[in-house]
Amino acid sequence: MQKMKIALLGAGTVGSGVVEVLRKNFHEISQKANCEIEISKILVRNLNRPRQNLDGIELVDRFEKILEDPEIKIVVEVMGGIHPALDYMLESMKHGKSVVTANKDAIAEHGKDLFEAAEKFQVDFLFEASVGGGIPIIMPLKECLTANRITEILGIVNGTTNYMLTKMSESHADYDSVLKEAQAKGFAESDPSADVDGLDAARKAAILSSIAFNSRIQLQDVHVEGISKIKLDDIEYAKSLGYVIKLLAVGKETDRGIDVRVHPTFISKDHPLASVNGVFNAIYIRGNAIGEVMFFGPGAGSLPTASAVVADIIEAARGKLNGTFGRVKCTCYDQKPHCPIEETRSSYYVRLLVDDKPGVLGKVATAFGDENVSLRSVVQTKCHASPDHSHAEIVAITHEVEHRKIIAALERLKNLDSIDEIQSVIRVDSEENS
Amino acid sequence: MQKMKIALLGAGTVGSGVVEVLRKNFHEISQKANCEIEISKILVRNLNRPRQNLDGIELVDRFEKILEDPEIKIVVEVMGGIHPALDYMLESMKHGKSVVTANKDAIAEHGKDLFEAAEKFQVDFLFEASVGGGIPIIMPLKECLTANRITEILGIVNGTTNYMLTKMSESHADYDSVLKEAQAKGFAESDPSADVDGLDAARKAAILSSIAFNSRIQLQDVHVEGISKIKLDDIEYAKSLGYVIKLLAVGKETDRGIDVRVHPTFISKDHPLASVNGVFNAIYIRGNAIGEVMFFGPGAGSLPTASAVVADIIEAARGKLNGTFGRVKCTCYDQKPHCPIEETRSSYYVRLLVDDKPGVLGKVATAFGDENVSLRSVVQTKCHASPDHSHAEIVAITHEVEHRKIIAALERLKNLDSIDEIQSVIRVDSEENS
Repeated sequence: MQKMKIALLGAGTVGSGVVEVLRKNFHEISQKANCEIEISKILVRNLNRPRQNLDGIELVDRFEKILEDPEIKIVVEVMGGIHPALDYMLESMKHGKSVVTANKDAIAEHGKDLFEAAEKFQVDFLFEASVGGGIPIIMPLKECLTANRITEILGIVNGTTNYMLTKMSESHADYDSVLKEAQAKGFAESDPSADVDGLDAARKAAILSSIAFNSRIQLQDVHVEGISKIKLDDIEYAKSLGYVIKLLAVGKETDRGIDVRVHPTFISKDHPLASVNGVFNAIYIRGNAIGEVMFFGPGAGSLPTASAVVADIIEAARGKLNGTFGRVKCTCYDQKPHCPIEETRSSYYVRLLVDDKPGVLGKVATAFGDENVSLRSVVQTKCHASPDHSHAEIVAITHEVEHRKIIAALERLKNLDSIDEIQSVIRVDSEENS
Repeated sequence: MQKMKIALLGAGTVGSGVVEVLRKNFHEISQKANCEIEISKILVRNLNRPRQNLDGIELVDRFEKILEDPEIKIVVEVMGGIHPALDYMLESMKHGKSVVTANKDAIAEHGKDLFEAAEKFQVDFLFEASVGGGIPIIMPLKECLTANRITEILGIVNGTTNYMLTKMSESHADYDSVLKEAQAKGFAESDPSADVDGLDAARKAAILSSIAFNSRIQLQDVHVEGISKIKLDDIEYAKSLGYVIKLLAVGKETDRGIDVRVHPTFISKDHPLASVNGVFNAIYIRGNAIGEVMFFGPGAGSLPTASAVVADIIEAARGKLNGTFGRVKCTCYDQKPHCPIEETRSSYYVRLLVDDKPGVLGKVATAFGDENVSLRSVVQTKCHASPDHSHAEIVAITHEVEHRKIIAALERLKNLDSIDEIQSVIRVDSEENS
């Protein structure tokens, strides 16, 4: 059987997973690739650091040793970050090597350059692992849902925040304590901001939406809100109203343009995404032929991510062997407008701390009404947090409304004497939105 | 843009969905296929039957008119059944035409002939719609999970039975009444046997397992049990024990061979498949790299099935245009033994009607023990069905055990005086099984 030499850039969590998977499933992988895939070089930062399980593989600390090796046909970028990974990928393609990557940052910010290089130099550029870890989602979107006009993508694409929200809901623990627990378990970084502030999910939202709507979405087009303001009270209210709170990557094609955002969202407990708990990820898609479809699985981790990376390596190897490289190209063949956040539409959950006096509920309802925000429900309850019971809470859920209107209504509410605080404003996914 | 002419065999539910999808998403599909797909002929049984929405397409009642048309590059078989569909597909390939089909019957029983023809005549043979309706599952298995050694597939692949079991659970209605309701709603045929007896699911189990384990599974290798014996009492017991009952297509690679079966199964309410309700389908897969992954969506219906068929048409069109046909071939490159049903292993739920006398529970436990069947739990309750309260029910759940041993234990139980009836024996999916 023919050999196919590849190189890895990086020997971290994903890189070592790739080595392990290629070794332990050698027989299956060779049959499927129709060749024996051999890792001939790995680029590492420090040659002297002791490493396990890389015996028989040449470690190099200069990228040129890989670039200038004509026997290496596929470069697997698993170092992460934009620099120098981006340059290494572009250079590899220029030298006729196909590139496989798990790098969401580089694709979300420099996707255009990468796809153009792949096209120009007639190589494969594959990136299944960049979204949803091991879950097959890029290829299914590009090849299996091609008959559809996709109208909506909703994704739980960040395991850290999904773990935290699940824990808050199941253990009634507050944000700070679940963050500490997630950090202790290795599910959150010591600086958790990329996860909890939604930036990681925003990159994945940009990638998924670009493919789903066939028009390039830039990271800066994504409206981002994180989970750090979510209170245990919101989670309890959500439950009592028949919802769960998830950090969702949302992409929609609307008559105002492509609407892409990341934010905590109330979703019905009967929605397929509602039972996706812990560090799991899932991507839910609506299309005008299939109706709805969901892909569920592990969104991170060494072996699951390697599962996606190695599948791409096999695809790239087939491309090299059979000359079928570049079969599925960049799919951004349209240029659609981007929907400004003010014009996006959603239902909203609004929780207010108010004076416990007659007439307040009416004033609140009037403030919404004056901005043409129609309410689906509004409930006033005693506020347990207030020891003298002089405060009450009002929880309102609106019908679908433009974002600018909810902002205007909130301004009005702020100016009402009897309202002490707007505690939470969280979007609600509802059938009307779809 | 280049044109690609195709023909449909059949203008029924799926065929008319294919016409509708190709028309309404013409722009998107043309971009993705890089050609304009045109249905030039449709084979129908009766030319005189009035048909809607097929204007502009030539209807023919002789297959030869399609076979002998050199402009037709792709034949889409959506007539169903084995004869004459199988011959038409083989003849089409012999004439150099790629074939797309939704025909699970033909693949489950004659897959080998079909794949060999595709290989011999250098055409694509694609069948995404044969399992799980619109859900992408065949291509993900063949192309996205290639890095894995797959150990287990569990599928809810029959919408009719899933609807019925969901209804029994939610509405506390018995089998006969939910069957009538499913028939009234068009979810079940007037002769429901192919669905309720598990044959439809068995065909899909054979197809999925052949791909997952890279070894051809014949329909006759699949052990099949339907849902007609499921009692409302079993559903209630399942609930109280933390389970739901689903008709599962099960495929496992064991050290005794490939084990493929279809039967009602207790699955934990926390399992991702447990919340797949109504007519929806889902396929859950365990692999040694990805861990677990699940694909969820509509398992039937005109447009969802057309979503999968048209995706295959686009793939076949790309194959014709770019010469990349036959890129992913038959993946049954191994010949693995088949695990006989007696040697398969599972946990079991056993419900017994017994005399309400002291000592019966001990006799039951002893009968299991004498056959080396270890019990995880055993509970005796009053039997509400017995007006004189002279009967009790015993519900036992076993640890994982060989099928032959549970059969032997049941034989012993039948011979005990104090046991009136073995009411139910249902397999339990448990962590030990995985």
